[in-house]
Amino acid sequence: MSYSLFSKSFIFTAREDPKAAECDSQRFLLKGCYLFMLSSGIYSYLPLGRRVLEKISMIIRKHMNSAGAQELLMSALQPIEIWKKTGRDKILEEVMFKFIDRKKRTLCLGPTHEEVITEIVRKYASSYKQLPFTLYQIQTKFRDEPRPRFGLVRSCEFIMKDAYSFDGDEEGLNVSYEKMLKAYRSIFTECGLQFVMTEADSGAMGGSVSHEFLVLSPVGEDILFYCRGCGHYYRQEQDCPQCKSKTEEKRMIEVGHIFKLGTKYSAAQNAVFLDRQGQRRPVVMGCYGIGVSRLLPAIIEQNFDAKGIIWPEAISPFDLTLIVLDESLLNEAISFAQILEREDIDTLIDDRNDNAGVKFNDAGLIGSPYTAIMGKNYLHDGKIEVEVRKTKERISLSKEEFINFLKEKNNEKK
Amino acid sequence: MSYSLFSKSFIFTAREDPKAAECDSQRFLLKGCYLFMLSSGIYSYLPLGRRVLEKISMIIRKHMNSAGAQELLMSALQPIEIWKKTGRDKILEEVMFKFIDRKKRTLCLGPTHEEVITEIVRKYASSYKQLPFTLYQIQTKFRDEPRPRFGLVRSCEFIMKDAYSFDGDEEGLNVSYEKMLKAYRSIFTECGLQFVMTEADSGAMGGSVSHEFLVLSPVGEDILFYCRGCGHYYRQEQDCPQCKSKTEEKRMIEVGHIFKLGTKYSAAQNAVFLDRQGQRRPVVMGCYGIGVSRLLPAIIEQNFDAKGIIWPEAISPFDLTLIVLDESLLNEAISFAQILEREDIDTLIDDRNDNAGVKFNDAGLIGSPYTAIMGKNYLHDGKIEVEVRKTKERISLSKEEFINFLKEKNNEKK
Repeated sequence: MSYSLFSKSFIFTAREDPKAAECDSQRFLLKGCYLFMLSSGIYSYLPLGRRVLEKISMIIRKHMNSAGAQELLMSALQPIEIWKKTGRDKILEEVMFKFIDRKKRTLCLGPTHEEVITEIVRKYASSYKQLPFTLYQIQTKFRDEPRPRFGLVRSCEFIMKDAYSFDGDEEGLNVSYEKMLKAYRSIFTECGLQFVMTEADSGAMGGSVSHEFLVLSPVGEDILFYCRGCGHYYRQEQDCPQCKSKTEEKRMIEVGHIFKLGTKYSAAQNAVFLDRQGQRRPVVMGCYGIGVSRLLPAIIEQNFDAKGIIWPEAISPFDLTLIVLDESLLNEAISFAQILEREDIDTLIDDRNDNAGVKFNDAGLIGSPYTAIMGKNYLHDGKIEVEVRKTKERISLSKEEFINFLKEKNNEKK
Repeated sequence: MSYSLFSKSFIFTAREDPKAAECDSQRFLLKGCYLFMLSSGIYSYLPLGRRVLEKISMIIRKHMNSAGAQELLMSALQPIEIWKKTGRDKILEEVMFKFIDRKKRTLCLGPTHEEVITEIVRKYASSYKQLPFTLYQIQTKFRDEPRPRFGLVRSCEFIMKDAYSFDGDEEGLNVSYEKMLKAYRSIFTECGLQFVMTEADSGAMGGSVSHEFLVLSPVGEDILFYCRGCGHYYRQEQDCPQCKSKTEEKRMIEVGHIFKLGTKYSAAQNAVFLDRQGQRRPVVMGCYGIGVSRLLPAIIEQNFDAKGIIWPEAISPFDLTLIVLDESLLNEAISFAQILEREDIDTLIDDRNDNAGVKFNDAGLIGSPYTAIMGKNYLHDGKIEVEVRKTKERISLSKEEFINFLKEKNNEKK
């Protein structure tokens, strides 16, 4: 990516809070020109929103690839026949968008992809020599939601990262599962989230063990009970079994869920391999989901103030908003942004013909980790005023000092 | 990206030609483990296929961004009401997947996005000061195809790059259109395609002027007439008006189509702005499509031989297939691939416990621009045998010579 001029960018912020907003994250995403609502539960990511999606996706890819997973891309369209094999055409019937095409095929839009990936693996994996492997995709999914709510927290079309591991036995599955669990911790940490991991119910997915990754937020639909004494979380309301203190109800947003599926799908869909002894056995599967688009509101719910979003450094659409308060400084600002570009620092230069108040408000709303001001001071003594979005700390730095400051922050990020 | 070990990769090539293949490109994509067919017209991109998609997408992004276009991501789900505004709910009725959700909304899956983008612009653009701008997305589209054919050439779910320009007047549109036309030439050239650009019919899209970008292929569904004398192409069968020679029918695949839409959509959907004189006027639009997933077969149809695919350098999933014929050389091969990685050269190391014949066959099928062999010669004199996939030229190079050779090729690519 590179620097952008605000005056040429598709960023048209609103003065008023949008009426459609049901929570803080949605309010700022709509007001800040991150997101466009076409209809209830149906959103477009405007250029700012897409930049955040892209940054989150790159973090996910980095950690999935490091864990040895391979990326593919499956179709959203799925013939209903493969769902009949596992009986989930009935279990998920209510949330599936289904229709008949002109060839009289019944198709659905995938709310998840266990059945499709199992068909793929059935075709290709025939021997223990090919195992283990883990495949993943970052892809759009669909759900006929009874109650689309809180913007991207619960929408009818959303982006997921879904991964699937394939092993020859339970031991192998445990290894693959642990690798994913570790990758998940790294991903959510790098996204700047405070999260909790708990054992969970496997629900419609089936299988034995599952873990959920949850983020504290008043708009969450999951509930945990937090011990006021020792800080543990529990699924059920109870006094803390460890320190006996009272627990308190906390609403949480689910951002990730991982499952040991075992052979539920492979047995139903006949995805078998020949083991070392030449015996046909169903592959042993795990599946691992992250709500990619849901991470936007989840992160914002943990990172905002009255002015707007406070993006964690790794996923902000821009690293820096550079406010130019004197037209004569624009070329100076551009050449400064070009220097930063070489250090992988993305700058939004606010070059608009607007007053300082409007520019400060928008910088706060859009939420880059740093706001820098090139104004009167810069003309006098070459100093740039820098405000740290999160702490509101203000420092005055020369260009060289500021470059070093950002380089250091960027290294910490990596 | 980085180097990959064949033995750990989801690449399971077929020995036999797949029965489902209707043309050479589809045959190699299925046989080479690039693509999985779930049902007629419905495909998944396996890891090799996804790598090619990603490389094509990055080329498109580079040229779109250079032309000043901004990326966004719109929803596939669209309420039918916005299509009623332009009357295209009737015009495109036959190819639209449509269904009613549990709230009794009629939704369709977007076969294209003029209506959605016009809704977005209607909301945000209110003044001439905000114009011009161009928005684009790389996104999955859906068509209820009467005849899905030739794999990714005509499928029910496909990936498109669609861009939309917004100007205050026709003059502005002409400038935006020329920029896109120039970007398109760069994109198709960098993808290694021989293409033809012709004026075309605007069809269901509406508007005045349109240009198609076409690629010569026996599986194409468009037809042009080629002059055997001067090499010009014509829409209609006729003797060449320039040199009077006979023309010959040529089948072509459409890979891009650009349109001057004018105010057809903005007028119907009331996307208006205040001009310099304070008059309300509809924005003047252009739209610009590339069949991203269709580029895979289009490129292969122009680049293959009896063995398999011959990828152009810029979009090959790997720059190099490195065949290791002696197990003792594997560590050597890996450290060599790591050196190449630093030069942005992606290597597929064929470390499988298979005979040389199998490995050469797969290298030919998968189609990296270069195949390198580390075998007996390397043990004797440190020489790597290099075969250029396209010319079959064979050269024997030391590691250092080979690195320089690839670096040079890589610089040409950029």
